Amino acid sequence: MDDVTADRYERGRTRFLDVHDEKALAAVEGLGDLGRAIVEFAYGDVYTRQGLSIRDREIAAVAALVASGRSSQIPQHLRASLKAGLTPEELGEIILQTATIAGFPPAMNAMSTLRTVLAEREGA
Amino acid sequence: MDDVTADRYERGRTRFLDVHDEKALAAVEGLGDLGRAIVEFAYGDVYTRQGLSIRDREIAAVAALVASGRSSQIPQHLRASLKAGLTPEELGEIILQTATIAGFPPAMNAMSTLRTVLAEREGA
Amino acid sequence: MDDVTADRYERGRTRFLDVHDEKALAAVEGLGDLGRAIVEFAYGDVYTRQGLSIRDREIAAVAALVASGRSSQIPQHLRASLKAGLTPEELGEIILQTATIAGFPPAMNAMSTLRTVLAEREGA
Amino acid sequence: MDDVTADRYERGRTRFLDVHDEKALAAVEGLGDLGRAIVEFAYGDVYTRQGLSIRDREIAAVAALVASGRSSQIPQHLRASLKAGLTPEELGEIILQTATIAGFPPAMNAMSTLRTVLAEREGA
Amino acid sequence: MDDVTADRYERGRTRFLDVHDEKALAAVEGLGDLGRAIVEFAYGDVYTRQGLSIRDREIAAVAALVASGRSSQIPQHLRASLKAGLTPEELGEIILQTATIAGFPPAMNAMSTLRTVLAEREGA
Amino acid sequence: MDDVTADRYERGRTRFLDVHDEKALAAVEGLGDLGRAIVEFAYGDVYTRQGLSIRDREIAAVAALVASGRSSQIPQHLRASLKAGLTPEELGEIILQTATIAGFPPAMNAMSTLRTVLAEREGA
Repeated sequence: MDDVTADRYERGRTRFLDVHDEKALAAVEGLGDLGRAIVEFAYGDVYTRQGLSIRDREIAAVAALVASGRSSQIPQHLRASLKAGLTPEELGEIILQTATIAGFPPAMNAMSTLRTVLAEREGA
Repeated sequence: MDDVTADRYERGRTRFLDVHDEKALAAVEGLGDLGRAIVEFAYGDVYTRQGLSIRDREIAAVAALVASGRSSQIPQHLRASLKAGLTPEELGEIILQTATIAGFPPAMNAMSTLRTVLAEREGA
Repeated sequence: MDDVTADRYERGRTRFLDVHDEKALAAVEGLGDLGRAIVEFAYGDVYTRQGLSIRDREIAAVAALVASGRSSQIPQHLRASLKAGLTPEELGEIILQTATIAGFPPAMNAMSTLRTVLAEREGA
Repeated sequence: MDDVTADRYERGRTRFLDVHDEKALAAVEGLGDLGRAIVEFAYGDVYTRQGLSIRDREIAAVAALVASGRSSQIPQHLRASLKAGLTPEELGEIILQTATIAGFPPAMNAMSTLRTVLAEREGA
Repeated sequence: MDDVTADRYERGRTRFLDVHDEKALAAVEGLGDLGRAIVEFAYGDVYTRQGLSIRDREIAAVAALVASGRSSQIPQHLRASLKAGLTPEELGEIILQTATIAGFPPAMNAMSTLRTVLAEREGA
Repeated sequence: MDDVTADRYERGRTRFLDVHDEKALAAVEGLGDLGRAIVEFAYGDVYTRQGLSIRDREIAAVAALVASGRSSQIPQHLRASLKAGLTPEELGEIILQTATIAGFPPAMNAMSTLRTVLAEREGA
């Protein structure tokens, strides 16, 4: 990595840790060059942009993940949503809203996942 | 329709007109019982719920439509988003955010549609 | 819940139990307001409609779940299909039919799930 | 084509014409080897199987096409459904049923397409 | 099975074993008539065609599975890809390439699966 | 744009023109910051990577677009595939291969699009 790439990676890494946490970063960094692309592009380029708060980005992220059936990243983004200030009630509403667009089955899974994420947080 | 169903339909219809407009309502009402189900359930039951603003519901709706490739309803929800106070810049950010989750091609289509919707509005 | 909503919920609950069983209802009711929306709308409004038998609704439900990759609800609807009178052979044909429209991988998963559901039933 | 392949193709072609019509066959045959694979496998092998009526296969086909967003083949299978004895009312119910599993937007498109197909038939 | 069908099945079975292995064949043959359709059509008809090498077919198979979220068959096709001569590095590139078209979440899952498949192979 | 970003953009732009052409670049550049992200990330970062030829990247791109139903970018990547040395016959095989994974309907659309792209090229 040259200096420039290193800077961009560093900016993405810092933003990633604002949105998620160390554990999530370790998982992404474990994916090699794909992980680096996620940190640099999705976090260094996109999440650091002005013009939309992290809270609003997380509404979009959760809705997009539920609607497209990409369930593996839902727990991570529900945790990020709570960190960004969305309440459990608001997350429940986002999931219900998504049910009208993508049907009940993916919303059912997401709601179960939300319960699990909230229970973990209380247990912590 | 009995009185109760009529009330629920009326509540959905009023909310539908808050979110969209008369022209969009006519299109939905042209779909028979499916249109009635959309007005009653998606608008009468879901969109009237407390706990999430219409603005935030529209962030979720746009992201869910883009991510799931349901392009036909994107123009309607981009117009609804502008009506709910989202700016063109925020909508551009939501679409870019969705690209990281669902890939560039559906984001490209949505961004073209946003341009068209904004041009229509200026032309109006 | 006011009386009207309670009636609609009750109608959905009765129909839900005709289609599925107590265990499935408990799972749905565990999802809070999303669960209530499913009982009221999907079962109270849609499944109680005239014009299509439960058997035919289940053909559509299984095909839609397989084709859209919503695998978590497949076991529930395979059990409901058997309860509605579809035979194991017919369910196998529906899955094979769906393979021509949505490809072999989701059909492979659904066929494995059908085997598991049939084995459970024999074991019960 | 050797005799055996020719027989299988012929069996698929005959069944294709039972399900759809000459115009649809010409479109499929215009797709070269892909068209041949569709006639031989989807119609010669799958649609000719015992164990599920063409009517029931069409319920599955329409639900699978709507749920997976494969809209280009929906008109063809709505026409095939009417030919197989499904009524316009039943098709409306199948589409509404699918909305609970895959959301309203694909059901809205399918319902518009059903209107168009029915209007064509009346016009014919 | 008559002689003709038996020949076609045999041709598919041989090709299936070239692409995958005995264990994968046993899993597919365990799926009854669906398994037979896979062996006959996907392997006997399609994979035996001239005009594209098995290596190139596997690039397409992996990309299609990742992009459409059909994760259950990804391990099988990553193993087949290695057998067909694709290197671990090339498979990583195919997955990263797919991320630009279908988003990061399915690519993250596929990359984890690739790690697991490579680890199994080293352990063997 | 600072010098560093400009370099990265320039590298992506050069590679984009290797893969596609001026007309396609104009369309992408017309998408504002999303277009810039595509040029910088998908072409500047991903397509310039060693380890997979452009030809093989295009096999993956076409298969991923067909399988995920992202039809709007299929013409662009079929043209890019021909430019990268894939033959019309190979593209037909890739589409047929994808049909086994994602079903016939998206393959039918892609095959029609391939015919159109080839006819355009002959007409040019």
